[in-house]
Amino acid sequence: VTGRAATITGIYLVTDTRLCGGPLGVVETVRQAVRGGIAAVQVRDPRATTRQLVALCTAVRDALAGSRIPLVVNDRVDVALAVRADGVHLGQDDLPPQVARELLGPGAHIGFSVSNERELADALTLPAGTVDLLGVGPVRDTPSKTDAAPAMGFDGLAAVCQLSAVPCVAIGGVKQADLPAVRAAGAAGAAVVSAVCGHPDPRRATQELVLGWAAAVERSEGGSRR
Amino acid sequence: VTGRAATITGIYLVTDTRLCGGPLGVVETVRQAVRGGIAAVQVRDPRATTRQLVALCTAVRDALAGSRIPLVVNDRVDVALAVRADGVHLGQDDLPPQVARELLGPGAHIGFSVSNERELADALTLPAGTVDLLGVGPVRDTPSKTDAAPAMGFDGLAAVCQLSAVPCVAIGGVKQADLPAVRAAGAAGAAVVSAVCGHPDPRRATQELVLGWAAAVERSEGGSRR
Repeated sequence: VTGRAATITGIYLVTDTRLCGGPLGVVETVRQAVRGGIAAVQVRDPRATTRQLVALCTAVRDALAGSRIPLVVNDRVDVALAVRADGVHLGQDDLPPQVARELLGPGAHIGFSVSNERELADALTLPAGTVDLLGVGPVRDTPSKTDAAPAMGFDGLAAVCQLSAVPCVAIGGVKQADLPAVRAAGAAGAAVVSAVCGHPDPRRATQELVLGWAAAVERSEGGSRR
Repeated sequence: VTGRAATITGIYLVTDTRLCGGPLGVVETVRQAVRGGIAAVQVRDPRATTRQLVALCTAVRDALAGSRIPLVVNDRVDVALAVRADGVHLGQDDLPPQVARELLGPGAHIGFSVSNERELADALTLPAGTVDLLGVGPVRDTPSKTDAAPAMGFDGLAAVCQLSAVPCVAIGGVKQADLPAVRAAGAAGAAVVSAVCGHPDPRRATQELVLGWAAAVERSEGGSRR
């Protein structure tokens, strides 16, 4: 855990092994997303055995070597430690963030999912420095996560972003055309799964998202200056 | 991780949440098994979420408090660290034992499953001190683990015990009547699931296994002295 990844902003890839066509497809998708300008990569594979997840995260880590792009492991703090990832992303059913912070130390990135205002209220009770990022969603209904909560929409996203003390990234079915609304809601970035994984050209898909995000940021900053 | 549990011998309970009738049933089964003289407890619940597993292990840890009976967590090194368990038991699909040893430190108990001579040969290549115990089986076909390897029988158990540099516990459908054969095969103990979990009187079931094991040990020592 390198400590370089406390803040993640922009377009954040969350991998889906099935959508990518298997572990080798994940690694190739990550390579292409790096070429496309991805800000960070989270490896998520709840169906993998621990050893498969270690192998996948190790291969992704190697694909990211030298790029300074943070590697985040979904759920598994032990796997993050084993592969020397930059941090973890925790869901409401995973290890409590305070426990993960104790195990990973102050330099690690810890993201945490909230899907409604009650979960946000709980997250707001965490001591400062426990969580670096909130993953907020699903903004739209998403095919990538079958056990996801109901979609909160952009108004729901804005409500969470406004109350949160830490940066928020939107997740859940976020597409290119949504990026202005994501930015207008106050998010620091957008996490994408199916917009990149399984796309015929993941590099180009990533690049368009990155450019779309940059344009949305520029527009919102222009707007706030006016 | 307390370091008190490098060696586990005798009757070793592996919990099955479904057989015990849910998490509260696991905790009550553990309480009864403690009264029956159990040597160690491994919490195994591959269907639980991480947070459910943390809650279950915490409750079992509290049930074991003051007993000096080691608590071992199946698969999850992060959960073992989070609940300050005495160690982990790793399958072939879990974190590699060397990695777990690095994460848990020299004082933790690390058990490792082998189900055939090829897996044993691999385990024998691990540096000394990596693994404290081998779980060897399934000795018999077992209803508790649907993805288990084919039964190796007592001859297969004996072959592994003879080659292993660390103590072995037999696992997989082991019953009261099997204990003399388990001991004769050279095992240091027997892990039980369905012989205790779901039994109408887990205390008595444990006590009978413990007494049966003690008798088998005495007989084998008497035999070796003759």
